[in-house]
Amino acid sequence: MPTTEARSATLELACELIRRPSVTPDDLGCQALMIERLEAIGFHVERLPFGDVENFWATRGHHGPVLAFAGHTDVVPSGPHVHWATPPFEPSIDADGMLRGRGAADMKGSLAAMITAVERFVAVHPDHHGRIAFLITSDEEGPAVDGTRAVVEHLRERHERLDYCIVGEPSSTAWLGDMIKNGRRGSLGGVLHIKGVQGHVAYPHLARNPIHQAMPALDALVREHWDSGNDFFPATSFQVSNFRAGTGATNVIPGDVEVVFNFRFSTEVTHDELRARTEAILDAHGLEYHLDWTLNGEPFLTAEGELVEATVAGVEQVVGKTPELSTSGGTSDGRFIATLGSQVVELGPLNATIHQVNERVRASDLDTLSQVYEAILGHLFVNGSARP
Amino acid sequence: MPTTEARSATLELACELIRRPSVTPDDLGCQALMIERLEAIGFHVERLPFGDVENFWATRGHHGPVLAFAGHTDVVPSGPHVHWATPPFEPSIDADGMLRGRGAADMKGSLAAMITAVERFVAVHPDHHGRIAFLITSDEEGPAVDGTRAVVEHLRERHERLDYCIVGEPSSTAWLGDMIKNGRRGSLGGVLHIKGVQGHVAYPHLARNPIHQAMPALDALVREHWDSGNDFFPATSFQVSNFRAGTGATNVIPGDVEVVFNFRFSTEVTHDELRARTEAILDAHGLEYHLDWTLNGEPFLTAEGELVEATVAGVEQVVGKTPELSTSGGTSDGRFIATLGSQVVELGPLNATIHQVNERVRASDLDTLSQVYEAILGHLFVNGSARP
Ligand SMILES: [Zn+2]
Ligand SMILES: [Zn+2]
Repeated sequence: MPTTEARSATLELACELIRRPSVTPDDLGCQALMIERLEAIGFHVERLPFGDVENFWATRGHHGPVLAFAGHTDVVPSGPHVHWATPPFEPSIDADGMLRGRGAADMKGSLAAMITAVERFVAVHPDHHGRIAFLITSDEEGPAVDGTRAVVEHLRERHERLDYCIVGEPSSTAWLGDMIKNGRRGSLGGVLHIKGVQGHVAYPHLARNPIHQAMPALDALVREHWDSGNDFFPATSFQVSNFRAGTGATNVIPGDVEVVFNFRFSTEVTHDELRARTEAILDAHGLEYHLDWTLNGEPFLTAEGELVEATVAGVEQVVGKTPELSTSGGTSDGRFIATLGSQVVELGPLNATIHQVNERVRASDLDTLSQVYEAILGHLFVNGSARP
Repeated sequence: MPTTEARSATLELACELIRRPSVTPDDLGCQALMIERLEAIGFHVERLPFGDVENFWATRGHHGPVLAFAGHTDVVPSGPHVHWATPPFEPSIDADGMLRGRGAADMKGSLAAMITAVERFVAVHPDHHGRIAFLITSDEEGPAVDGTRAVVEHLRERHERLDYCIVGEPSSTAWLGDMIKNGRRGSLGGVLHIKGVQGHVAYPHLARNPIHQAMPALDALVREHWDSGNDFFPATSFQVSNFRAGTGATNVIPGDVEVVFNFRFSTEVTHDELRARTEAILDAHGLEYHLDWTLNGEPFLTAEGELVEATVAGVEQVVGKTPELSTSGGTSDGRFIATLGSQVVELGPLNATIHQVNERVRASDLDTLSQVYEAILGHLFVNGSARP
């Protein structure tokens, strides 16, 4: 009964990983555990630490296209343990069959499913077509500078081939596999300082209130139609996340305002275009300002191709239902990998509880996910859909 | 040489008052000093402490209209002494003839000038027409609840007559007496909480950004023409002093916004009208909000009458130039006294350095001010301009 055996192995490995409180950027032996399993089935593993971040790159096979499983061993902090029904780093399965613990959904469950999927696959297909790879980091939840980004730069310098990448981020919403992320919007952040002239509310003619100046300008940015999106992306959105002005005193007109905003943008605009249009609107309002930009990620898209086909087919084969393709949600390390020209999809368990207390995932979903990953390998490297 | 003697007495008393570090609500013996001087020239004095605030009411004379000198013995904190050229509570006169110390301008110099003016006046006119009064508090710079406001309520209950009041606030700008405040705008404060729906910037359709909602509504309040003012008041002004929204995280749409604003309003609108119009504008923008109002002071105005005439005449007689009447600036305790139906003016030294380090006033200006106060007494109670 291979299903029962797989379930056990995936869950056991997920629990072993959860037991390590590997809060970003700590790995605490998670990668060593994965490496041990991968080396046992013939992977060649390179540890690629950068700064205080543990990463590794592992490959099996010597010819043909490369499919990489990508993920992270770090987790977000648990918060006070008293808020949890069970201790966050002691994995448990409750009466409803839910595996609970920090990282259960994001994304130690996915890591375990990847490992056991590959173990089963290579047991049956020891001389598989193509190459299987792992790109694992311990800093996805943190600054994400010395993690996947650094590994990708390293692979780029070596001219490594990376045709396909499955990121194990929790992409599902209602049932396992219902949503595959085949792209992500770009994220562009701005910190805007608007300068006025401080004064007393009783003498407004001697002051220049930067809050008053900010409002019509920001309102124009909110109302601006940045683009209409396209078949894969919703329209670009602009959101102000923070607005700070005032000394606390009720009778002082403040001298400056700090506004933090964020664009989530489609492939219909470039970040350069967004910057230029934002500054044109601020200039048109006659503001005296300083604006610092941070490009958090370019948008990426795998509109179609063998990987999307194989992933949709894998879900259909194992789950019996057809998944939806989506580019919704935040950024992921897929943004870095896509710069190698790879086809990238994200497929993982339900994301309802990620980053929350009592993070949990249906235990049987991890077994199903492992089977889906295995089926994708079959579609790409056995049924021959992959390019030679 | 009475001028020389007056100068000495006023300056000496100002220095004695400055030496007492009577930061709000402390009086530290300032009032006892004034009371000793007033009792010596026949004043009847009542101490009227409320809460931790020292106040007194003193009168001399038994018939006819009442002219009260009003002021405060408390001062704002000095801040770090190292920022001062000389210690803030050690009065000194520099080579330029400037008396420096906390309270020199606001308003221990005025208090000294009032006392010496009355001393000289009653020496010459022991049986003066009318009644001379003092209304002194130790909480003008603080909450101003147990100070002048409470004394005024006490006087109201006793049906005390208060025809004329000269508040010693530093009203002058370029030369002593150039500006007499014959009223003040009203001050109405609002704390506005706008409620939205918190969310992630990547999922704006699941959130409702209260910053975005606030901007057009506040912009409408800024652009609103509240009134046109009148001969005595500039147009009513609306100023946002504080705007706080956001968790600090750049990817979170905040759940609420706090906006603090203030109206300085003329006698052309009422505070009830301002409240109603503000709420109508917020309602028209479909905001979900909570708004707390604080009426800091009603506007008051002494458009004309014996007190204004006597004060203008007093400045012209002593200084040789004609003062300007103005209602500009912040609120003062005049707002409370005016509710008794009194004519109220404010006349004091130059206000350039009040509430600042190295607060100072030209020493000779205090002597001039004392002469002006004395001249006003003469116009009202000797030359017979006062109503019987
Ligand atoms: Zn994740
Ligand atoms: Zn004052």
